[in-house]
Amino acid sequence: MMERIAILGTGLLGTSVGLALRAAGYTGSLAGWNRSAEGGREALAMGAVDAMGSDPIELARQSEVVILCVPIYSTLDYMEQLSGVLSPEHLITDVGSTKGQITDAADRLFNTPERAAFLPGHPMAGKERGGASLADANLFRGAVWLFTDDPAWQRSTRGAELARDWRAWVAAMGSKTIDLDADRHDELVAWVSHLPQFTATALSALLEEQVGNAPELKHVGGRALREMTRLGASPFSMWRDIAHTNTEAIEAALQALERRLAYIRENLRTPELREEFERANAFRRE
Amino acid sequence: MMERIAILGTGLLGTSVGLALRAAGYTGSLAGWNRSAEGGREALAMGAVDAMGSDPIELARQSEVVILCVPIYSTLDYMEQLSGVLSPEHLITDVGSTKGQITDAADRLFNTPERAAFLPGHPMAGKERGGASLADANLFRGAVWLFTDDPAWQRSTRGAELARDWRAWVAAMGSKTIDLDADRHDELVAWVSHLPQFTATALSALLEEQVGNAPELKHVGGRALREMTRLGASPFSMWRDIAHTNTEAIEAALQALERRLAYIRENLRTPELREEFERANAFRRE
Repeated sequence: MMERIAILGTGLLGTSVGLALRAAGYTGSLAGWNRSAEGGREALAMGAVDAMGSDPIELARQSEVVILCVPIYSTLDYMEQLSGVLSPEHLITDVGSTKGQITDAADRLFNTPERAAFLPGHPMAGKERGGASLADANLFRGAVWLFTDDPAWQRSTRGAELARDWRAWVAAMGSKTIDLDADRHDELVAWVSHLPQFTATALSALLEEQVGNAPELKHVGGRALREMTRLGASPFSMWRDIAHTNTEAIEAALQALERRLAYIRENLRTPELREEFERANAFRRE
Repeated sequence: MMERIAILGTGLLGTSVGLALRAAGYTGSLAGWNRSAEGGREALAMGAVDAMGSDPIELARQSEVVILCVPIYSTLDYMEQLSGVLSPEHLITDVGSTKGQITDAADRLFNTPERAAFLPGHPMAGKERGGASLADANLFRGAVWLFTDDPAWQRSTRGAELARDWRAWVAAMGSKTIDLDADRHDELVAWVSHLPQFTATALSALLEEQVGNAPELKHVGGRALREMTRLGASPFSMWRDIAHTNTEAIEAALQALERRLAYIRENLRTPELREEFERANAFRRE
């Protein structure tokens, strides 16, 4: 079983992973690294890691399992850097929100018997704001944790063992795991995650223009409006890499929603509106 | 002070009004009427009304204040029926979601010294499903209750007194009241209430087509997706009259969102995306 874990990036997800592992009974070492010292101190103070290191590559080398909890392009950068440094005795996994480019890099740089293993992962959990201070040991409880593992990969014996071990810890943190192809992953999350985010961003930006100068009217909408715009608070820094690495699928989803809104607009007084409500009702039916 | 209230329509809102009035200390009589006997029995069993009547017009005649808690076209219908029956000793108020046609009818049929008074109202509170069983004495707590009163109306002395009294009870139920012009009301709610609803309907209907046949994938999205589609469960019956009586304002809001989504789609890889996120962030900033 794994004994030494390094978490690179102790923001909301990295810190939550550390807390969740401890809550699930993990007793090995947990080292952390973070780009900003402040986020690192917070993760340490919360007990998400035992110690913060100053050199992420050295930290990775000293651990058995490396969890990359940084933005997507940064993940790709670490994959390049770590491929020449780690051995078949190491597993790397990640939490990136798009999986096409990361899974391609995992295929190119890892997952042969002579190299380190890489298991591409994506927990469907988060908050509209980031940072260690919002981390939560229960963030992954009841969530789905997606993997875009490739059955054709020939991992080292130890790498395969660590990958199985990591999947078991993900289950212990309370997540349900689902495996799917990387292309299918990116298409799926474009619909169920990226489209809702960009819709909330569009709606919030539009309402800021319409009623932003009348604060008393912003609150008129109540719970429905609060929910539909909560994700409007998401910072661009969390979404830039997603927009850049899943552009085509997001474009297709946005265009489909534009057409759907136009269809409703053209049918506000026709019987088609009832059918559209019934389709929407069906989505919410258990 | 008012002593006899009739609630016509004991669905979610009507039943909640009865419960909230009692919770706020109203000790006069509360009579109810409902189109379906089942909703009436439920409201009675919950203590939202003291008795259910079988004739809404007769019930209105015997009360001082009539609260219309029925859909918009039904509200307009009762306004016509009651205008010839009630006297300057009566106040009618309503909870309809669009106010243009109702305020016009109030001007035409009520609010002279010789006629009953009508105070058009709209509590910004509700749930995505209706019915007495979901009623809640705290539904209006912290919500905004809009009025589209016309300062030019010349009400009877008793009518004006009852209107002031009703406003005081609305405040006692925990709502903040805001007065605005009926046209401005309908434009405002098109942005902060109707647009979020139709957006959730469009998103839910679209996702039903995309992932509805894969139940395990519907749950991948987590909290963000649940929130963005919760209103997808709203029944058409609650929204038909809104779509019919505020069509132009809703069309304008929908078209503006379509353009906004297209703008994001065309800028997924340009610096404009950052600015759009910043505008959205501003809307959510307190």
